[in-house]
Amino acid sequence: MPVRVAVNGYGTIGKRVADAVAKQPDMTLVGVTKTRPSFEARSAVERGYRLFVAGGGSVDEFRAAGLPVAGTLDELLAESDVVVDATPDHVGEQHRAQYAAAKVAAVFQGGEPADVAEASFNALANYAVGRGKRRLRVVSCNTTGIVRAAAVLRERYGVTGWEATLVRRAADPAESKKGLMNGIVPTFQFPSHHGPDARTIFPDLPIATVALVVPTTLMHVHVNHVRLARPPASGAEVVEAFRSTPRFHLFRSWEHVDGTPQVMEYARDRGHGRSDMMENVLWETGIRLDGSDLHFFQAIHQESIVVPESIDAIRAMFDLAPDAATSIARTDRALGLTR
Amino acid sequence: MPVRVAVNGYGTIGKRVADAVAKQPDMTLVGVTKTRPSFEARSAVERGYRLFVAGGGSVDEFRAAGLPVAGTLDELLAESDVVVDATPDHVGEQHRAQYAAAKVAAVFQGGEPADVAEASFNALANYAVGRGKRRLRVVSCNTTGIVRAAAVLRERYGVTGWEATLVRRAADPAESKKGLMNGIVPTFQFPSHHGPDARTIFPDLPIATVALVVPTTLMHVHVNHVRLARPPASGAEVVEAFRSTPRFHLFRSWEHVDGTPQVMEYARDRGHGRSDMMENVLWETGIRLDGSDLHFFQAIHQESIVVPESIDAIRAMFDLAPDAATSIARTDRALGLTR
Amino acid sequence: MPVRVAVNGYGTIGKRVADAVAKQPDMTLVGVTKTRPSFEARSAVERGYRLFVAGGGSVDEFRAAGLPVAGTLDELLAESDVVVDATPDHVGEQHRAQYAAAKVAAVFQGGEPADVAEASFNALANYAVGRGKRRLRVVSCNTTGIVRAAAVLRERYGVTGWEATLVRRAADPAESKKGLMNGIVPTFQFPSHHGPDARTIFPDLPIATVALVVPTTLMHVHVNHVRLARPPASGAEVVEAFRSTPRFHLFRSWEHVDGTPQVMEYARDRGHGRSDMMENVLWETGIRLDGSDLHFFQAIHQESIVVPESIDAIRAMFDLAPDAATSIARTDRALGLTR
Amino acid sequence: MPVRVAVNGYGTIGKRVADAVAKQPDMTLVGVTKTRPSFEARSAVERGYRLFVAGGGSVDEFRAAGLPVAGTLDELLAESDVVVDATPDHVGEQHRAQYAAAKVAAVFQGGEPADVAEASFNALANYAVGRGKRRLRVVSCNTTGIVRAAAVLRERYGVTGWEATLVRRAADPAESKKGLMNGIVPTFQFPSHHGPDARTIFPDLPIATVALVVPTTLMHVHVNHVRLARPPASGAEVVEAFRSTPRFHLFRSWEHVDGTPQVMEYARDRGHGRSDMMENVLWETGIRLDGSDLHFFQAIHQESIVVPESIDAIRAMFDLAPDAATSIARTDRALGLTR
Repeated sequence: MPVRVAVNGYGTIGKRVADAVAKQPDMTLVGVTKTRPSFEARSAVERGYRLFVAGGGSVDEFRAAGLPVAGTLDELLAESDVVVDATPDHVGEQHRAQYAAAKVAAVFQGGEPADVAEASFNALANYAVGRGKRRLRVVSCNTTGIVRAAAVLRERYGVTGWEATLVRRAADPAESKKGLMNGIVPTFQFPSHHGPDARTIFPDLPIATVALVVPTTLMHVHVNHVRLARPPASGAEVVEAFRSTPRFHLFRSWEHVDGTPQVMEYARDRGHGRSDMMENVLWETGIRLDGSDLHFFQAIHQESIVVPESIDAIRAMFDLAPDAATSIARTDRALGLTR
Repeated sequence: MPVRVAVNGYGTIGKRVADAVAKQPDMTLVGVTKTRPSFEARSAVERGYRLFVAGGGSVDEFRAAGLPVAGTLDELLAESDVVVDATPDHVGEQHRAQYAAAKVAAVFQGGEPADVAEASFNALANYAVGRGKRRLRVVSCNTTGIVRAAAVLRERYGVTGWEATLVRRAADPAESKKGLMNGIVPTFQFPSHHGPDARTIFPDLPIATVALVVPTTLMHVHVNHVRLARPPASGAEVVEAFRSTPRFHLFRSWEHVDGTPQVMEYARDRGHGRSDMMENVLWETGIRLDGSDLHFFQAIHQESIVVPESIDAIRAMFDLAPDAATSIARTDRALGLTR
Repeated sequence: MPVRVAVNGYGTIGKRVADAVAKQPDMTLVGVTKTRPSFEARSAVERGYRLFVAGGGSVDEFRAAGLPVAGTLDELLAESDVVVDATPDHVGEQHRAQYAAAKVAAVFQGGEPADVAEASFNALANYAVGRGKRRLRVVSCNTTGIVRAAAVLRERYGVTGWEATLVRRAADPAESKKGLMNGIVPTFQFPSHHGPDARTIFPDLPIATVALVVPTTLMHVHVNHVRLARPPASGAEVVEAFRSTPRFHLFRSWEHVDGTPQVMEYARDRGHGRSDMMENVLWETGIRLDGSDLHFFQAIHQESIVVPESIDAIRAMFDLAPDAATSIARTDRALGLTR
Repeated sequence: MPVRVAVNGYGTIGKRVADAVAKQPDMTLVGVTKTRPSFEARSAVERGYRLFVAGGGSVDEFRAAGLPVAGTLDELLAESDVVVDATPDHVGEQHRAQYAAAKVAAVFQGGEPADVAEASFNALANYAVGRGKRRLRVVSCNTTGIVRAAAVLRERYGVTGWEATLVRRAADPAESKKGLMNGIVPTFQFPSHHGPDARTIFPDLPIATVALVVPTTLMHVHVNHVRLARPPASGAEVVEAFRSTPRFHLFRSWEHVDGTPQVMEYARDRGHGRSDMMENVLWETGIRLDGSDLHFFQAIHQESIVVPESIDAIRAMFDLAPDAATSIARTDRALGLTR
């Protein structure tokens, strides 16, 4: 019997998780919540999702807009085995007691503090830790990008040092009032919170992160310098290591993908979800091995990269797959992330 | 037997036309052309389209990239009844003789001069004129937006004057080297070419257009002031006139769609094609009737709005439908533009 | 004896007004206020301005930063004859009673409601109305641009109709957190508030304004269609009418000023104030007369255009000049707006 | 007798160098060149600079525009002791023979290959090397930023390793047609050319640079990780080392300068040149010492940072000052870079 999944919060992350759940063979999407009528609520209805009202929203307001409402968040939880919390940062932790009272398991997002859950989670990195847990936290988009790359490099080569500069997007594409219009804004924090956050997954990862914000809405880009304990034979070997790992997409030189505008264009061409790119994006010409020093760029699609991780988190919690590889393959097949 | 369609040029417009052709019940996509390997060529292959080499491109270069090549443009034309030319502006007219020699009909884009074809075309506005023609030109994105609106207003209310300010996007989203980064650039031309271009469809349309360019990649926005000969009873009547016409999408106030960032987000949510919005986009609260003066905003998705028009142009040329309404309905059903 | 002027609020407008006051032969800058230490406060001190603390700011905080403080807003007002209020929108009106109690005259900005003052003011348009008033409101940047142009056109040619589309900047250049990053946001208000605001100066001006916001920080651009009662002989006559009027700057075709990026570059080259452009900016090739219809673009530097108007408002209130032309000439000479 | 200086090319760099030359007590600006009339040519004339025609420009075209022309480039060179070449990248080297034939010394910009000159130059780093040379090359803006910082750190602390990520602006503010509108574009070159370029000044500097381009026009930002041989006692010591060095500007925390938008606003407030910031810009809170590892951000104003270096290059070549410190102090006093 499929696990019954609720999605609380149908925004940037929530709507993608809802779609992803709906595509999984071993899960059922019970419904999604919205606080007020909007084009996103309309879109949920057009997709055939049952709409529940949360966050003090008014059922009457939805009905006046002609949007059918199936009930309240509590009613949604009553029909569900697990809830994926996709509410805004720090709102999730306020729901924790409500989820517990409703006896539903919960997957939180990386905007919540680590102690909101029993463990922080990434499918490639620590799938097994999720087994049997009732509350997991999928780490944030940038941290997910880092720990995926760490999962590739640590075991194979050993990581003895890592400096990452995170060049961050200022706002998501649908924003019309906030963001950085022209300029660069450094984050005056050494390290930025991403390094410590990565250590909620790999406690000994010797990474130092620095961040800054730039005027783009499309993707983050990480500039990585990694020192390896057991250097690979060649840069080509590293390229192959990334390429053969699920949730990595490598562009070749002849594809003429200069930067994130073309990455996103390729995502639109590929047509997954909402023009999404759920993999870490690397360029073959953007990877350079210099003795035991590895340099590489990776681009991270902040809107979607955590979506498959949320699916695997559910699968780990409910023990729906024998191991990480099986869960990842099942998720990726359902999402069209074939390789 | 379906009409066999070639698409010459698999870029912003061409790739969308190829998808649209592939979805039509009465058309077959024979293949598409590219001049060099790229992520777009890879994407064509992933979609299962046959790839032909055009514009002096090298077959060997494609093969080195692992992309199968079915032949040259001439070979593509030899298998086709009609070609949709989606090459860059002013390149199309250079192909005119080649198309004629290959005895294929041709649909050109609005970046070509009007005399490249026997007539300029828009499905809502002058479908019948396309009948039996061998060369049609689908007017450009902005002109298509204008003539669709004119098709709604002219017959019903009579248009005695129209000033339109076209606030144009500076470059398409995949551009990484050109465009306007911070500023506003007026087009010092009164009227801009769009008004005269609209008169290739409606010769007596009393429209004056002015244009300027702004730093966005998403959509154009038109600000329209129209004087009507036979004023509607109310603004609501005008809203209903637009809403009941194919290829118009009206957002309601409760949808909280402030501007083009949310329009494009809705397009991503809806999931047509490449996050496209092939309709003229209007807002109920962006339409105001003041006596016989009508004011309205409309947003135009430059990447996709001409796509359904190209399909109808083929249908008109080959007499595949009894009238405009039938062709439009068939196109829109296939494209998912249900209403 | 020079009029003693206080500037309350040393932000975008206030700092420019302070500089302008300091340059006038018949005015003395008593001091400026800030609510907290900042680079702008530092800059005020570097310019030699006396710094007063307003808005609940802490004197200790300034001292900890090493910035000398001359006193509070009340102490500043006690030494002044007039205060230019350059606090944020709607904060100005909250100070009205305080200014009255301190027996200082007050100049408010256009972000305040019209009834904050005895009259709305523009030097070219209604200088005389300012005489002897104790509270004047200088209209906002966009309205100032409109009424200046109206002052040129009304008397000479008569205006029987005017549609203006205001393409607005989303945020000022120093913003790092808000604004519109990629997209166009229409203002769903017909007319926008600018037309009615222009009628606080010219009550019978038949203007209808529509506005939208675009992703730029530099300048606004207005697209104007004006119907004239007594058409000029030629477009060249209109060009000359604008050129011969103070506070208009016309670019010639050979200057290759495509748009606002180059206008601002010229402003930097000219070196007035903070790279400011206090005039209405027009292009000769951006003015077109078509019978009795006049079309023209104008660019408006939102940060500085109201600055000379604030100076003239003071001069009108205190009867420091015999007429508008004298005041304008004195202001402009002091500001380097020679022609 | 002052050294007579010509400036060939009155664009972004050239116009600033011309102003700087005009302000030096021991130099005379003979004139500047332009290839065609433009707002910049007009501005040169307004500043009282003699205008010469270069690059195949037409004297008649200038005269038609009402701009007085003093002669050709050859005539300008004939009156000059030294020319600062500020022509576009790679155009400078084409002029080398012409300069030699005219027997003028030459200062080239960093966009030229290193072998265009006898040595690459930076005042803080290698002033003495410029003595008596006839051709010097001032390194590019980013390289200048790097070598200035290296000049502070090398002698004091010894540098054993340095990774720098250069987050580059896509175009200058006056551009209206090119640049990156929305996205991030990595430079697929390890190291980027900046590291090797820095070694034209400090041959043994162990720096590895990586670069990427982002959608801003204002400034570059460097993220630096430096390993020091002789660690400073504290971060505060490093702050003081930078602060006490000419051509470094450090913002304090209480100034609330979040990023480059406010840096440029401070530059406008300060009112040097064309709202320029000729110093390396650092933030106290953007410097962190971690044992022997130093992390710091610095912002680089691409339009102006090389300007004072060009002045010092001339002074070195003509032996106008006894040492670097004297030349730098004289330049900076003239430019208002007081500290």
